[in-house]
Amino acid sequence: MKIGIIGGTGDIGEGIALRVSDRHEIILGSRDPAKAVETAEKIIDILKERGITGNCRGTTNEDAVKEAELVVISLPFQHVASTLAGINPEYFENKIVISPVNPMERKDGCFMYCPPDEGSAALAIKKMLPESARLVTAFNNIAARKWAKLDVILDYTVAVTSDDAEAKKKVMEFVSEISKLQPVDAGKLDVACIVESLTPLTINIAQNSKLKDLSIYMK
Amino acid sequence: MKIGIIGGTGDIGEGIALRVSDRHEIILGSRDPAKAVETAEKIIDILKERGITGNCRGTTNEDAVKEAELVVISLPFQHVASTLAGINPEYFENKIVISPVNPMERKDGCFMYCPPDEGSAALAIKKMLPESARLVTAFNNIAARKWAKLDVILDYTVAVTSDDAEAKKKVMEFVSEISKLQPVDAGKLDVACIVESLTPLTINIAQNSKLKDLSIYMK
Repeated sequence: MKIGIIGGTGDIGEGIALRVSDRHEIILGSRDPAKAVETAEKIIDILKERGITGNCRGTTNEDAVKEAELVVISLPFQHVASTLAGINPEYFENKIVISPVNPMERKDGCFMYCPPDEGSAALAIKKMLPESARLVTAFNNIAARKWAKLDVILDYTVAVTSDDAEAKKKVMEFVSEISKLQPVDAGKLDVACIVESLTPLTINIAQNSKLKDLSIYMK
Repeated sequence: MKIGIIGGTGDIGEGIALRVSDRHEIILGSRDPAKAVETAEKIIDILKERGITGNCRGTTNEDAVKEAELVVISLPFQHVASTLAGINPEYFENKIVISPVNPMERKDGCFMYCPPDEGSAALAIKKMLPESARLVTAFNNIAARKWAKLDVILDYTVAVTSDDAEAKKKVMEFVSEISKLQPVDAGKLDVACIVESLTPLTINIAQNSKLKDLSIYMK
């Protein structure tokens, strides 16, 4: 599968490329395509050292969406609207789009969940995409830094939400391919706000507990 | 420590009594004190079979608060206001009060988090109590049915919030005495909404996954 990652030079982009580019074609997008090319080369080198052939390249965000079958929006929420505005909406038509985006702000040393008026990043992003795009939330609660450390086993629960049952199922299958991630069906997009809000909570807990990179496991 | 439990005949009340009445004095309150007495006797019998002496008795909700040093409000959110209105507020003065309350409603087969105008059950309950009461949220995300099964090890993370740092610390110590619960400092009461909202999320996930009694572990 061709997977295009908007903001692909961040932790999630690198992490997905490192962990699945042996099986999938990963297209890292960036507003700075030279940086995306450099990141892709770095990933190929890391995998090569382990005897793995990675299929990964860097380009613009628009190209990454255009060429992909599945798109991941790996951006801070405040950059989503401006970035999507720079991409021809036709390129999203009928594609599965994954949002791991968590809108949050720091206030008095504590992270607060700050959703837009729509109620969640997911519901806001849905409005920015063409109607045929199949939005799914996933990967919201995995500590960013754990993604790119290939030796870290990701033994976490990934709560997946979508209004499109088939797209949700496909994303859950994709999630289950990565490390030891356990996808679970958390419902429709209207509960994405809960999943998104969990990340500022775990960041605060990690900070207060002097723990690091806390993620969620449900059992 | 004398621990009074409002709504003490429910799963959390029974669970706390079963799990700590060997070390603490547990006072189960109920609007039906005969039922509380019966529950307390049942708990003492269960512990006796295991060679444990439980210190547990049943009474009215008001008496449970009056006699306790620490109070747990173990009620569905929609019964909190009317129950607290029937208890002399002086009995709460200067006491630590734990809220494990999660306001939620079922809609189209799915549980939604439905906080009151204050933003969370915790912030609403704070307004119902005298100012000197020291409100702490804890135990929100432990599946109710796991509490009362004494053989089930509770190896979960308990996110604790409060505006009173000392009360929070004391509650965290209390949490850590129970089974293998791991208390973590999740911040002030203004983030209790996130912790409360996690419970409808895990219930929905359990339902969609045909899993049972999901609880949260952070790692």
